[in-house]
Amino acid sequence: MKLEGVHRRSIEPVGAGQTVRILDQRRLPWEIRWVELATVADAARAIAEMWTRGAPLLAMTAAYGFAMALRDDPSDAALAQAYDTLLATRPTAVNLRWALDEMRIATAPLAPSGRAAAAYARAAELCDEDVVLNRAIGGHGLALLRALHAGHPDRPLNVLTHCNAGWLATVDYGTALAPLYLAHDAGLPVHVWVDETRPRNQGALLTAFELAGHGVPHTVIADNAGGLLMRRGAVDLVIVGADRVTANGDVCNKIGTYLKAVAAADNGVPFYVALPYTTIDRTLASGDLIPIEERSDDEVASLTGPTTAGIATIGVTASPVYNPAFDVTPARLVTGYITEAGTVTAIA
Amino acid sequence: MKLEGVHRRSIEPVGAGQTVRILDQRRLPWEIRWVELATVADAARAIAEMWTRGAPLLAMTAAYGFAMALRDDPSDAALAQAYDTLLATRPTAVNLRWALDEMRIATAPLAPSGRAAAAYARAAELCDEDVVLNRAIGGHGLALLRALHAGHPDRPLNVLTHCNAGWLATVDYGTALAPLYLAHDAGLPVHVWVDETRPRNQGALLTAFELAGHGVPHTVIADNAGGLLMRRGAVDLVIVGADRVTANGDVCNKIGTYLKAVAAADNGVPFYVALPYTTIDRTLASGDLIPIEERSDDEVASLTGPTTAGIATIGVTASPVYNPAFDVTPARLVTGYITEAGTVTAIA
Repeated sequence: MKLEGVHRRSIEPVGAGQTVRILDQRRLPWEIRWVELATVADAARAIAEMWTRGAPLLAMTAAYGFAMALRDDPSDAALAQAYDTLLATRPTAVNLRWALDEMRIATAPLAPSGRAAAAYARAAELCDEDVVLNRAIGGHGLALLRALHAGHPDRPLNVLTHCNAGWLATVDYGTALAPLYLAHDAGLPVHVWVDETRPRNQGALLTAFELAGHGVPHTVIADNAGGLLMRRGAVDLVIVGADRVTANGDVCNKIGTYLKAVAAADNGVPFYVALPYTTIDRTLASGDLIPIEERSDDEVASLTGPTTAGIATIGVTASPVYNPAFDVTPARLVTGYITEAGTVTAIA
Repeated sequence: MKLEGVHRRSIEPVGAGQTVRILDQRRLPWEIRWVELATVADAARAIAEMWTRGAPLLAMTAAYGFAMALRDDPSDAALAQAYDTLLATRPTAVNLRWALDEMRIATAPLAPSGRAAAAYARAAELCDEDVVLNRAIGGHGLALLRALHAGHPDRPLNVLTHCNAGWLATVDYGTALAPLYLAHDAGLPVHVWVDETRPRNQGALLTAFELAGHGVPHTVIADNAGGLLMRRGAVDLVIVGADRVTANGDVCNKIGTYLKAVAAADNGVPFYVALPYTTIDRTLASGDLIPIEERSDDEVASLTGPTTAGIATIGVTASPVYNPAFDVTPARLVTGYITEAGTVTAIA
């Protein structure tokens, strides 16, 4: 999407395409810094140190890291090592493993001399496929937004979102934000309520930054405020992304998603989940079976941001903390799932 | 309650009782600083600049300020001016106005020479009455906690609370926290989930500090986490305070309260509101009629706390912000109201 007036992707080939650049997302929105990744070690570091984030974007960063490894050494040994090094950056990331498998399939059968070119071509292809996928989700979501807006064409459509499921988490468009970008570009008046999304504040930092860059009207709110807004009729629908969706349609997503879903149901506000089909985990019958990651206390107990004298980290509480990263929204609270194949009311 | 091993009140006479001391709550929990208020101007400043907070505590600070004014000048003119000065610090505070009216009734009919002594006596009486009131709320809440704990005596009772309705908002005990202090003192094992309570973080800063001081086991969580905990069965009940309760039982309280109430209902978790009867506003038929205060963007857009190099204020978002301070929980979501007269299921 647009950033500083120019259409960008979150991962872009540089020059002749032997290297890529990504945004250092740790500094957003305070500093827009593109970082060039020139080697497999650069790519591994960017993933491990969270310069970049979002399951699809991590996968693409790994794909290009794999290509850069083969550019420097196309041997079988180097190929195996690149795979292992990149996988080790985030061993539980399903998309990352999938992308590395795709890269290996596209290169391992070839003679070493042909591997680098094939790898770069496949990495570019995976990125383009991600864009097409998200654009398809956006198109189906747009149809939904158009229908809702037709019910009150005299005012903007107010959409609430939680966390960041935008272009900064994918290659472009995002999942939950894709319908909003397409709606804005199509001239449909949308306004987005952006949940701050404590404790890591991806809403206040990243989603707000994305929307501002593309010119989509938006307002940041404390996570606590969404219920009041729904009771007032100030939210026409909720759209969130998903970390994982189980076979019965339960949605594991950023902590706090469930509170918005239950409030939406209490107020008759439609609650949509935007996701590619690959997010569906059919091996799990229900969300109760998903292990919930518990993250560092520091994420709640301190917060980092800019001061007039540079970046500082302040204390937020002096007491013990518990920090679960995700929650599960039961399928009964989900109005629909916006996928690349269309919007469905149940996971089939 | 206890602080640094000693039982304290949030407002205490100093020495011969001509002045009082309060905690500078702006610095908690990072610095425990008692401030002596020696004149009506000190009291007015402490209220206006939010050194002290909480409707009952503000009222008591004003009462003592009124007494100090009469100590310095017991004339009719000084009495009238003290009333006006203190009321102007927080013109919409119902408790503050009520306390000033009580002080005026107790002093205006007297000869000037007797006014100061009567004023100090009445201020002390108002403080004691507040403590008795909160202790009564605590006693009724304790009965409730005992009954719930009897259902699973083998493990602690997990209580979730939002914002700060503790002794730092009253003279002692608090409203929502009073049952928890009495339970802890009675040997009932309680553990408190403390909502951070964005954007002003009264939970992470004040409630956690109070509970730590008195030795009550507690854990701070992001406001987003409560729903997950309820779904897991890790919350046995919710207790919150109230800013105002309307004739039909709707509860106006800190923003985010409603989200916890609707999640509690979805999970069969009892949701209680602790309040003195004076909080009930019978002039309003329902919560929809309560005007919701909208506060400064800064409360969401920046955050102040300690760094290794002193106190700093950091940016939290670069985007537009909306900051409503309260929301309304409909009576249908309230299991019961814990009052000084007992626990009731509806406002009669």
